[in-house]
Amino acid sequence: MVKGHEMKAAYYQGKRTITIGPCNVEPPKAGEVRLNVAYCGICGTDLHIFHGQMDKRVKIPQVMGHEMSGEVAELGPGVKGFAVGDRVVVRPLWPCGVCAACRSGYSHVCYRLKFLGIDTSGAFQGSWTVPAHTLHRLPTGVSMELAALVEPTAVACHDVRIAQLRPGEAAVVIGGGPIGMLIALVARDRGARVLISEVNPYRLSLASGLGLEVLDARSEDLPPRVESWTAQAGADVVFEVSGSPAGVEVMTKLPRAGGRIVPVAIFSEPQKVDLFRFFWREMKLLGARVYQEEDFERAIALVASGKLPLEKLISARFSLEQLGAALEQMESGGQAMKILINCSG
Amino acid sequence: MVKGHEMKAAYYQGKRTITIGPCNVEPPKAGEVRLNVAYCGICGTDLHIFHGQMDKRVKIPQVMGHEMSGEVAELGPGVKGFAVGDRVVVRPLWPCGVCAACRSGYSHVCYRLKFLGIDTSGAFQGSWTVPAHTLHRLPTGVSMELAALVEPTAVACHDVRIAQLRPGEAAVVIGGGPIGMLIALVARDRGARVLISEVNPYRLSLASGLGLEVLDARSEDLPPRVESWTAQAGADVVFEVSGSPAGVEVMTKLPRAGGRIVPVAIFSEPQKVDLFRFFWREMKLLGARVYQEEDFERAIALVASGKLPLEKLISARFSLEQLGAALEQMESGGQAMKILINCSG
Repeated sequence: MVKGHEMKAAYYQGKRTITIGPCNVEPPKAGEVRLNVAYCGICGTDLHIFHGQMDKRVKIPQVMGHEMSGEVAELGPGVKGFAVGDRVVVRPLWPCGVCAACRSGYSHVCYRLKFLGIDTSGAFQGSWTVPAHTLHRLPTGVSMELAALVEPTAVACHDVRIAQLRPGEAAVVIGGGPIGMLIALVARDRGARVLISEVNPYRLSLASGLGLEVLDARSEDLPPRVESWTAQAGADVVFEVSGSPAGVEVMTKLPRAGGRIVPVAIFSEPQKVDLFRFFWREMKLLGARVYQEEDFERAIALVASGKLPLEKLISARFSLEQLGAALEQMESGGQAMKILINCSG
Repeated sequence: MVKGHEMKAAYYQGKRTITIGPCNVEPPKAGEVRLNVAYCGICGTDLHIFHGQMDKRVKIPQVMGHEMSGEVAELGPGVKGFAVGDRVVVRPLWPCGVCAACRSGYSHVCYRLKFLGIDTSGAFQGSWTVPAHTLHRLPTGVSMELAALVEPTAVACHDVRIAQLRPGEAAVVIGGGPIGMLIALVARDRGARVLISEVNPYRLSLASGLGLEVLDARSEDLPPRVESWTAQAGADVVFEVSGSPAGVEVMTKLPRAGGRIVPVAIFSEPQKVDLFRFFWREMKLLGARVYQEEDFERAIALVASGKLPLEKLISARFSLEQLGAALEQMESGGQAMKILINCSG
């Protein structure tokens, strides 16, 4: 068998269509590194692409995927600090380096940001060539499966950092999908009291199993619970991760005077927001997007520490050939949390 | 003439009805001070009360007014640090002192806050009795007319402080009413570049006359102007002071990555807010309400410094008997900025 036959890639071909074909093994150019991909998790964004909602942005055929772990296979000219065989994860951001955002410490929200796996080819393939500046080295002892959770854990670390969450504070997480669950775990690890609100029985049960305090939003209202939970003070921080109008409606009812809301979910349409509450209680809404270098380092340290029960968040594993079926399981919602794709095939 | 005949008060009697009658001269109880009121400005909140929109909160008959200057006339038992004849302004907040907000440094947004002139009797009267803790002494040389602008100037100082506005930053003020104008002046005094957006020709002309950079929102769009004004970076801070859905729609289009929006206007109904922009550019929405002690001290110093062209913001002066007519002039909008009522009769 030739190498092109061994290395596979999954190609998004348009709405709800994934094909499997030979991987385009790209030799690394100057400043690039070629990786052998071990695992890659499915992100909500991948599901949006699968649903055809990002067809204006992606190039068909598109290799998706950016929550990966892997090993350095080949170094391009001029790349220092890495060696073949190094175990790494990729921080999939490619900022322009010259715009006003890049020049002011906000390169992670660069005005011309390329996101690897959306604006470039992604990690649902056996071989992936990326800029060396995106690499973070893994410590020994981290499994490649758990390392694929570094990227979403870095999102959670960033959100918790943006929230300026302090030990002892009361944090409410609205929505218990993978990112909500990771925010809850990272917040708890930081010493906060955490309450997570969900409607899905599988997720509620999983959150309880992780030792998190849960609220079943199908049968209980959040505001009175938060009032009693905080002795009438209000929550210090609220993370809106549900992406629902109901979440946006309730989020402003929960914080204390001076409390913070981090809108984590992505809303493509303007939402009705009760600005009066921001006035009345001098609350803050703190936008957060992806992560910065320090969030990735923090996430790697957390994953390596074994302190977070990340293994329990992996609800299924599929081969690369099964990516389409995995996306369908994820969209059915009910029983899915983090789904990993084995790309090493 | 008896004193009760000399001292008048203006009473809100229900929607659009003001009557003039004798002032109820209240002897100060322990911890209270009785003031002779010199001037009191009309606030937008007074106009809301006049329109019957706050009938559930005020007690009819209600003496409104809280933007005042005056002189200490009588000290209640136990009041130290003030003497009869002292020239003062009142910070019209009466926090409970025991709630979670009060206990965490947020007494100005106390969960049981009483606002003098709304929840208690106000300053549109010759004699006003208030808690001594609300008093701020005026330096010599400040006119009593300009001193009546300390309270709205303190609002502007608070908003600018909440915004963390720094010298050299680019600040956009949407809405050039009295508070928008004061925010623009305070922001400029702090060393910021300021652009103010308005639709009313009188206000536009007034703002130009104050040397402010203006945008006529009837004929020009804010986003391209802010783009060119900031060399494509985006504004550092946006103050939404128009209270209009159009203001809320445009406010999220203006900030740079990491930029701040202070929603100053009060929205009684939830508004459509583009949360995507908060995500995309990691913007912050920073709620602001009234002021704290340091904002009042800063406002007094600014008013006393003569550095702000406050005289030009006073568009009319009326006697207490003319309060109804003054409110009608204010609601007509066109030619009104800050209207002062001479309460000393």
